[in-house]
Amino acid sequence: MRLTVLAGGVGGARFVRGLRAARPDAEITVVVNTGDDLWLAGVRVCPDLDSIMYTLAGASDEDRGWGRRDETERVSGELAAYGVGWPWFTLGDLDLGTHLARLAMLRDGLTLTEATARLSERWDLGATLLPMSDEEVETHVVVAADDGAGRERDMHFEEWWVRHRAALPALRFEQRGVDRARPGPAVLDAIAGADAVLLAPSNPVVSIGTVLGVPGIRRAVETTRAPVVGVSPVIAGAVVRGMADACLAAIGVETSAAAVAAHYGSRSAPRRTEDVGTGQDGKGTGLLDGWLVDTADADARVEGVEVVARPLLMTDVPAAAAIADAALDIAERVHR
Amino acid sequence: MRLTVLAGGVGGARFVRGLRAARPDAEITVVVNTGDDLWLAGVRVCPDLDSIMYTLAGASDEDRGWGRRDETERVSGELAAYGVGWPWFTLGDLDLGTHLARLAMLRDGLTLTEATARLSERWDLGATLLPMSDEEVETHVVVAADDGAGRERDMHFEEWWVRHRAALPALRFEQRGVDRARPGPAVLDAIAGADAVLLAPSNPVVSIGTVLGVPGIRRAVETTRAPVVGVSPVIAGAVVRGMADACLAAIGVETSAAAVAAHYGSRSAPRRTEDVGTGQDGKGTGLLDGWLVDTADADARVEGVEVVARPLLMTDVPAAAAIADAALDIAERVHR
Repeated sequence: MRLTVLAGGVGGARFVRGLRAARPDAEITVVVNTGDDLWLAGVRVCPDLDSIMYTLAGASDEDRGWGRRDETERVSGELAAYGVGWPWFTLGDLDLGTHLARLAMLRDGLTLTEATARLSERWDLGATLLPMSDEEVETHVVVAADDGAGRERDMHFEEWWVRHRAALPALRFEQRGVDRARPGPAVLDAIAGADAVLLAPSNPVVSIGTVLGVPGIRRAVETTRAPVVGVSPVIAGAVVRGMADACLAAIGVETSAAAVAAHYGSRSAPRRTEDVGTGQDGKGTGLLDGWLVDTADADARVEGVEVVARPLLMTDVPAAAAIADAALDIAERVHR
Repeated sequence: MRLTVLAGGVGGARFVRGLRAARPDAEITVVVNTGDDLWLAGVRVCPDLDSIMYTLAGASDEDRGWGRRDETERVSGELAAYGVGWPWFTLGDLDLGTHLARLAMLRDGLTLTEATARLSERWDLGATLLPMSDEEVETHVVVAADDGAGRERDMHFEEWWVRHRAALPALRFEQRGVDRARPGPAVLDAIAGADAVLLAPSNPVVSIGTVLGVPGIRRAVETTRAPVVGVSPVIAGAVVRGMADACLAAIGVETSAAAVAAHYGSRSAPRRTEDVGTGQDGKGTGLLDGWLVDTADADARVEGVEVVARPLLMTDVPAAAAIADAALDIAERVHR
């Protein structure tokens, strides 16, 4: 069974780990958001790829929720002593090993896809990680400049997210470079050739949204013959992890399981009322066949989408596996 | 008193530390070889600049003879686990902090000279470190290809030096990029405006020789109004540190205190017999006014060079200070 997941960082990582536990024999491919990637001290950092790799490898720091277990910050301490760096962005030593290994590969001419495959070889991931694109895409956040003159300023998503804890109201997100980006070489086939496509409970705006923004990927999801099932990142009107509500607000989407599903759209019903007659209506204009929500959101209804309610807190691997299982159940049921 | 030293790595570092102890009030400028610099894993490594910085900062590992004290290799271990890197070249975590800080500055558009100044600010060096050039120069070593067909192959100097311990006979050295390199912005003035110019007991071929190979630097030493005094890196026919004899052999210079001085040449006598009549003869065609040798080489004679013998083993800082003191004594005596 070929299962393809669109995913961001930690939420995506835990979902994929559950999926691997639920379907150990499946061929799992994860199309990963790279819009959070950044150059830091001349080194290429890929937060989402690494979160997923570490989590699947069993090398992640589960308590902290990010980075490597048994991490140290010797190099970071030196950078700080030299007055270099981003006090808000921790570069752990083990984590830096990944960034540097990747940098060496990129400098040797490997693509990000190839470098990711090389890095993955070290671990027993039980899944193939595909960067959404080999081209650089950087998500920037536009906020009010706080100059009293109504001007705007922007910053890299990671700065907004990690440094400002998403507390500065985002006016909008700009996925720089996304229009020119091409999907990674195996991405479209992984979506088109899957037995099921799953949208992980990742940030719908800056994770899944960025992946879908790469020209060709949204269309591949819309048109794949596989059922497409999403897992809600919102439970009872609150995001489970992170601060995705701040992102949803910026794009005018309510923080609710139903609103996120409506934002993704149905593959079999007009996507939004205002799209009718714009060429965006009708079959193939939305992304979802099924939508898994938490039991707290059991009353969620989305036109043209099969909504099922199950407990969605990924408290441990069995819980995540049960969630993945439920998503696959929907996929089987809606299979056309 | 303005003292300018041409220097390579560890030998140069220890000499400058002695000089600082001998003349704590002097304005010391060190023109440092950057021909050993290399890109490793996408990071810029400057072995000689770092050796001198760490030594003057009191942060060097004196037992090992290179790198930082209390060093760890967490990042290196990760690189190895990913199958990346150069098992023969250790990237310590603290050391890597320097490389990454430098990389960040270079990527921000600073020159190597500016980045070196920024890195130096952290420490109390008591000396200004000037890279010989802001342009990249890479010393490569050409060796026999060992293919039975008499072909040649070449490698970066650090690979030859560290990995092969200089055991592969060097056919020649190539300072790639040196012809196009310009001296660092303050280098020529530091030499022209010094009260004394000192050649540290560094490798005459790949350290001092590379510095002198940057167009304009040799001429600045030849023509400075300051006395120029060198300290022999050879004691009793053997090099004190490292494997400089292998380098001397490659350029046809005997490993003796007198031969190295003759190689540098006298500022007041024809440089070499065969240079007479070639425009290379006469005043200003050599580098040395004075030459400090070990007591074991007290019989060394170099035409047109004031040779003085003193114990030259830099066993500790006072010993290095005494050597620096002796070199400055010569400088004072030969001052024209």
